[in-house]
Amino acid sequence: MKKVKVYVTLRESVLDPQGSAVMGALHSMEYSEVKDVRIGKFLELQIEEGTRDVDTVVKEMCEKLLANTVIEDYRFEVEEAVSK
Amino acid sequence: MKKVKVYVTLRESVLDPQGSAVMGALHSMEYSEVKDVRIGKFLELQIEEGTRDVDTVVKEMCEKLLANTVIEDYRFEVEEAVSK
Repeated sequence: MKKVKVYVTLRESVLDPQGSAVMGALHSMEYSEVKDVRIGKFLELQIEEGTRDVDTVVKEMCEKLLANTVIEDYRFEVEEAVSK
Repeated sequence: MKKVKVYVTLRESVLDPQGSAVMGALHSMEYSEVKDVRIGKFLELQIEEGTRDVDTVVKEMCEKLLANTVIEDYRFEVEEAVSK
């Protein structure tokens, strides 16, 4: 079993209204040192190793479903899952 | 300037319907090797160094606004921001 961590972030050129809203809230809470906030997604997948290469499969899943590559970038890390 | 990466994840005991929906979609796309999906948030903050300690400030912001500690866990990393 592999544990895959996927980070999906908005491309730098894309406006992030959710991040702006959070920054506004932080400023109103007196955290004026915060100069920028960008919000993305963080996905943790558990993948059973089979005949297909995990890296290839995760890349495909990101391109097809997990990230909107028009406006988002993604990166991922594959780790050996710790059995419980 | 410091770059802070904050990861907010649902606690393990909390159901993740969004993750289940994504897993269902992946299964219907023939990615049956995916056994679990959990979805969280990933925030990138730019923080100007001032009189307050960045670690303390970020911890406070997470507790008060960025994470709902009843159902979510958070962790963060502070990096030196690369000036552009």
